[in-house]
Amino acid sequence: MNVEIVFVMVGTTHTGNLGAAARAMKTMGFMKLRLVDTCSHLSDEALARSSGANDVLKEAQKFSSLSEAIADCRTVIGTSARARQLAVPLKSCRDIADELAELSASDAAQNHRVAMVFGQERSGLSNESLDLCTRLLRIPCNPEFSSLNLGSAVQVVAYELSQAIESVPQGAPVPMPGKWKGGSSEQAVELDDDEKPATSASMEHFFEHLDRVMIDTGFLNPENPRLLRRKIRRYFESNRPSTNELSLFRGILSATENPKSGQ
Amino acid sequence: MNVEIVFVMVGTTHTGNLGAAARAMKTMGFMKLRLVDTCSHLSDEALARSSGANDVLKEAQKFSSLSEAIADCRTVIGTSARARQLAVPLKSCRDIADELAELSASDAAQNHRVAMVFGQERSGLSNESLDLCTRLLRIPCNPEFSSLNLGSAVQVVAYELSQAIESVPQGAPVPMPGKWKGGSSEQAVELDDDEKPATSASMEHFFEHLDRVMIDTGFLNPENPRLLRRKIRRYFESNRPSTNELSLFRGILSATENPKSGQ
Repeated sequence: MNVEIVFVMVGTTHTGNLGAAARAMKTMGFMKLRLVDTCSHLSDEALARSSGANDVLKEAQKFSSLSEAIADCRTVIGTSARARQLAVPLKSCRDIADELAELSASDAAQNHRVAMVFGQERSGLSNESLDLCTRLLRIPCNPEFSSLNLGSAVQVVAYELSQAIESVPQGAPVPMPGKWKGGSSEQAVELDDDEKPATSASMEHFFEHLDRVMIDTGFLNPENPRLLRRKIRRYFESNRPSTNELSLFRGILSATENPKSGQ
Repeated sequence: MNVEIVFVMVGTTHTGNLGAAARAMKTMGFMKLRLVDTCSHLSDEALARSSGANDVLKEAQKFSSLSEAIADCRTVIGTSARARQLAVPLKSCRDIADELAELSASDAAQNHRVAMVFGQERSGLSNESLDLCTRLLRIPCNPEFSSLNLGSAVQVVAYELSQAIESVPQGAPVPMPGKWKGGSSEQAVELDDDEKPATSASMEHFFEHLDRVMIDTGFLNPENPRLLRRKIRRYFESNRPSTNELSLFRGILSATENPKSGQ
C-alpha cells in the first residue's frame, strides 16, 4: 500500500474516545493520528481505552487548525452524519473505500497522503471544516438510530479501508477514473507529483489568491459574500486539480493582477 | 430482507459490553439479542452504554445453553479470533456477509433464521460452542494488534451484514450456491421449509441418534471417542443438510436400529 492514510480528530471532547479511536485504528493497521483542538490524548483514561495502542496516542501529532493538519494531504475525507447543503459529494463508506483502493493500486498512489477527518462527538464537523474536504463520507445507519460513537465510527471506517486496500494488488496498472488516470495500462509509469491532486496547503493558497482577485475586481463584496465562496470551494474541492493545473490557475490569477503592458 | 438475523452473546463478563453490543446492533438495524450465561444486561452501566438501545437490551432473550439459543436457527455463524483445528470453514466477515446476501435474495430466505454468535471477551467461544456452528467468521485484523473489543467486533459484523444484505434486491431469483439453490432462475418459487437447511435443534437430534447408533454398533467407544464425533460434526455442520435430507438420514439410522425382519 503506497497511499498513506492519516486519521484526524477535530474537537474531540471525551479523552476516552481518543483511546478508543487509537485502538480501532491500530486493529486495522493504521498508526498515524493527528489532533486538532481535542481534549488530552495522553490521559490515563485515553491510554486505558487504547488497550495497548499507546504508541498511536504517543506518536499523535497536534495541530492548531484543521487546515494545518491536512496541509500535506491530497485527498481529504470528512465524516458526516448528515447531508449538508453545498458540500462536496457525499459518498458511502464503501464507495470511498473503493475509490481509495483504486488510487492505492495506481501509479498515482506514491506520495499521496489521504486524511480521514472526524469531528466533535455531538456536533460533528463545522461548515468551515467541511469546506476543507474533497469528499464527505457517511456510514449507512439505521435511520431511526444512527448513534454511532466515535470509536465505532473509526472502527467501521478503518475496517472498510483496510478491506478495500487489501483487496487490490499493489502496483497493478488499474484503470483510474478522472484525474488518477495516469500511466498506460501496459506499463506502470511513475506518476510525477505534479500530476497528482494538489495538496490542501496549495489549495488554500489558491483560494486566497482567487478571493483576492474576486474582491479586487469587485466581483465579490467581502461584506456580503453570500454563498459565492462556498460554491467555488465546493467545485474545486470536489474536482481537486493536480499541482500542475493549480499552477496554471494561479498563473492566470497572477496575470489578471499584473497584466503585462502591450499584451 | 427475509432472513432474520439474531445476535447471540455467550459468557459475556462485562456488562458494559452488552450495552455496547446492543448499541452497535441497533445502529445497523438489528434488534434481536439472545444471551447465554452472560453477566447482567440490564445494569445501569449496560443501559448507559447502549446509549438509547435500551429496547434491544430489554427485549433480549435469555437461554441456559447455546444449543437452546440457536435451536430455531438454520445457519449459525461463530466469531473467532483464531483458526481452530477441526472446526467448520473459517471465512472472512465479508465472505460471510456475501453468503448471507445471496441467501437473503433467494427463495430460501423466508423462515430462515441466522445466528451470529460472540463468545467471552478473552477466551472466545469454547470448542463445544464452535461445534454448534455451521461457519466460523473472522474479522481481518492487524496481525500484530488484533485487540478488537466486543462492541467493536459486533459493530463491524453488523455493519458488514447490513451493507451486504442491503445491496441485494429482495426476492430476486439469484442463482444460489450449494443447498440454497432452489427455485428456477425464470420464476421465483417459494421454497418449501423442508428444502431449507435443517434447524440446529433437529441437527442435535440427528447427532444424538447417530451417536447412539455408533455406540450401539461398537463403532464408537464412548470411553475413547477421540476426534470421531468432532469430525462427523464438522462434516455435517459445514454441509448442513436440508430438513428433508436429515429426515432421510434419521430414517436410515432408525432402520439400522430396528431392521424389519425379512428385508
